[in-house]
Amino acid sequence: MLPPPITHPIFCMSQIMSDIKSGIQYMFQTRNSMTFAVSGTGHTAMECAICNAVEPGESVLTAVNGIWGERAADMADRIGGRVNTMVAAPGVFFTNAEIEQALSKHRPVLFFLTHGESSTGVLHPLEGIGQLCLKYNCLFLVDSVASIGGAPLHMDRQGIDILYTGSQKVLNAPPGTAPISFSERACQKIFSRRTKPVSFCLDLSWLANYWGCDGKPSRVYHHTGPVTAFYSLRESLAVLAEEGLENSWERHQKVAEYFHTALESMGLKLFVKEKNARLPTVTTIVAPHGYDWKDITSYLMKTHNLEISGGLGPSVGLVLRVGLMGCNSSKANVDMVLAALKDALKHCHKNKM
Amino acid sequence: MLPPPITHPIFCMSQIMSDIKSGIQYMFQTRNSMTFAVSGTGHTAMECAICNAVEPGESVLTAVNGIWGERAADMADRIGGRVNTMVAAPGVFFTNAEIEQALSKHRPVLFFLTHGESSTGVLHPLEGIGQLCLKYNCLFLVDSVASIGGAPLHMDRQGIDILYTGSQKVLNAPPGTAPISFSERACQKIFSRRTKPVSFCLDLSWLANYWGCDGKPSRVYHHTGPVTAFYSLRESLAVLAEEGLENSWERHQKVAEYFHTALESMGLKLFVKEKNARLPTVTTIVAPHGYDWKDITSYLMKTHNLEISGGLGPSVGLVLRVGLMGCNSSKANVDMVLAALKDALKHCHKNKM
Repeated sequence: MLPPPITHPIFCMSQIMSDIKSGIQYMFQTRNSMTFAVSGTGHTAMECAICNAVEPGESVLTAVNGIWGERAADMADRIGGRVNTMVAAPGVFFTNAEIEQALSKHRPVLFFLTHGESSTGVLHPLEGIGQLCLKYNCLFLVDSVASIGGAPLHMDRQGIDILYTGSQKVLNAPPGTAPISFSERACQKIFSRRTKPVSFCLDLSWLANYWGCDGKPSRVYHHTGPVTAFYSLRESLAVLAEEGLENSWERHQKVAEYFHTALESMGLKLFVKEKNARLPTVTTIVAPHGYDWKDITSYLMKTHNLEISGGLGPSVGLVLRVGLMGCNSSKANVDMVLAALKDALKHCHKNKM
Repeated sequence: MLPPPITHPIFCMSQIMSDIKSGIQYMFQTRNSMTFAVSGTGHTAMECAICNAVEPGESVLTAVNGIWGERAADMADRIGGRVNTMVAAPGVFFTNAEIEQALSKHRPVLFFLTHGESSTGVLHPLEGIGQLCLKYNCLFLVDSVASIGGAPLHMDRQGIDILYTGSQKVLNAPPGTAPISFSERACQKIFSRRTKPVSFCLDLSWLANYWGCDGKPSRVYHHTGPVTAFYSLRESLAVLAEEGLENSWERHQKVAEYFHTALESMGLKLFVKEKNARLPTVTTIVAPHGYDWKDITSYLMKTHNLEISGGLGPSVGLVLRVGLMGCNSSKANVDMVLAALKDALKHCHKNKM
């Protein structure tokens, strides 16, 4: 006897991809059909967005208030974009007036902004920027790697044209896949390019077909997706949907406030002064006076098996960074971090003797 | 009491990366220190090789005897290479005289060749080509995605300058990482580029530092590697080393010969005529007369839960393809495939009635 017919694995995989697509649409709060996961990490998604949206010689504007804007500028430069940056000190964000001034001056085809600046701990306000980009006929690209799921974001309502994140932040899935979505307006620009994108692997027309987003009945072999990573991405999106996006936003916000208050009551200073611009997923603490920040992070790792980072890019030497996101965003974890941090501050003072 | 100090996870990860590097050096038979795994699949490694080795305006030659040469040509074209191809019918390989003629005519900086042409079933001879590339001051780039570990290849002795593969073929690890290695000569060209590579994610100078291949004492954050995929890649390389490379080559060869003989005795024809140029990992069978090849593959999937493919790229409609690689290359699996194939041929004949 032959075994009973089973579901065709190719159907299974396209069902999983289809579930991933729905999960991302929910997480991003978008109806874009051009929504899928890039086979790579957040950087790959950043490169995918830029190399599709920009043609050589076109003007690009990136908002640099930490490492991610620098990297976006580097990527746009490599593919021949005319790159302009608007730069703010680490820990600071841009006003809509500053953004409008820069859009008006540089007339970019693409404006890059980081929602959750994990190197500085800034949660950038998004309201009104999408409308400004529309007014200046510019695509609005937002990096939400460190923020999505942990802070409110509404892709469609806020007029975001391209949005991406990574699998290993709030989603808590292993790194290796990166959710991304393109608005109709972004697709229109991309699909009327005069030149091919420099990357075959990241070419949106291939990816759109691979993910069944182009309406064509059959899929052409593009690349071999990281299937096991897709399974875990699907599951992580299901976990988020189960909790509910608003609940997740609220939990992250409450836990962050609890954490921030406790840190200040310990005499530590938060790096981001404006309360509303504090990222709920990554807390930046001003590197405390009288300490070498490396002593603190090493002590915590060795003694408490806890990884707290120093700064990244422009914030190196200025801050300690604590990431509490997804399932790790809980009061119990905050209490654990606080206890460990108190212990570290006792042991690592330079004048301890 | 505090828990006892444990090994620093960053040390653990760099040890795993270091093990991966050694495993790839063994699998590739190379002493190149510039050896690591790209965070992506085989296509990403192909793009990594080309976008680092070629600058805009430089001449590139790709040998096209199946889909991979076409894709390499596409990638080189996208980054502004002057691309020439030498084209052979699917199922055929190039002689060294033909290759020398093309090298002499086009004077490329990079010559691309596929060792295991999985779309056509051709195992391309490699002897003497490295020397020809050296003679014409050209880098020799070889795609061994479908062949490495399943057929003899000696990167250093055969004068291969850039070699890559994928994790999910003979290695049997999940897809998502791609071993790659660069010779000293390749590094010299790449590190004296006048322009930056178009991709930040695939820029060799960043990847070299990320993988500790550049001799610098500290590593700068580049991207978040797919850590769980790295664990499985390390394990798959350990499994290969445990069997021994020569033993693995021999096993694949014997199983392939056993399979090929049985197919011919069933009256089927092998697509690759030259015995020595038959890929031991992917067998191509001439699509049998009197059948629609799609009926056969669907029947096998539905009834036997066995995935046998049709052609890919230039071989579509011409062949059936059977992949037996890594742990799947065994006589028991061949017997299972043969039984299923016999059953399919009985049921799928167009004039069955």
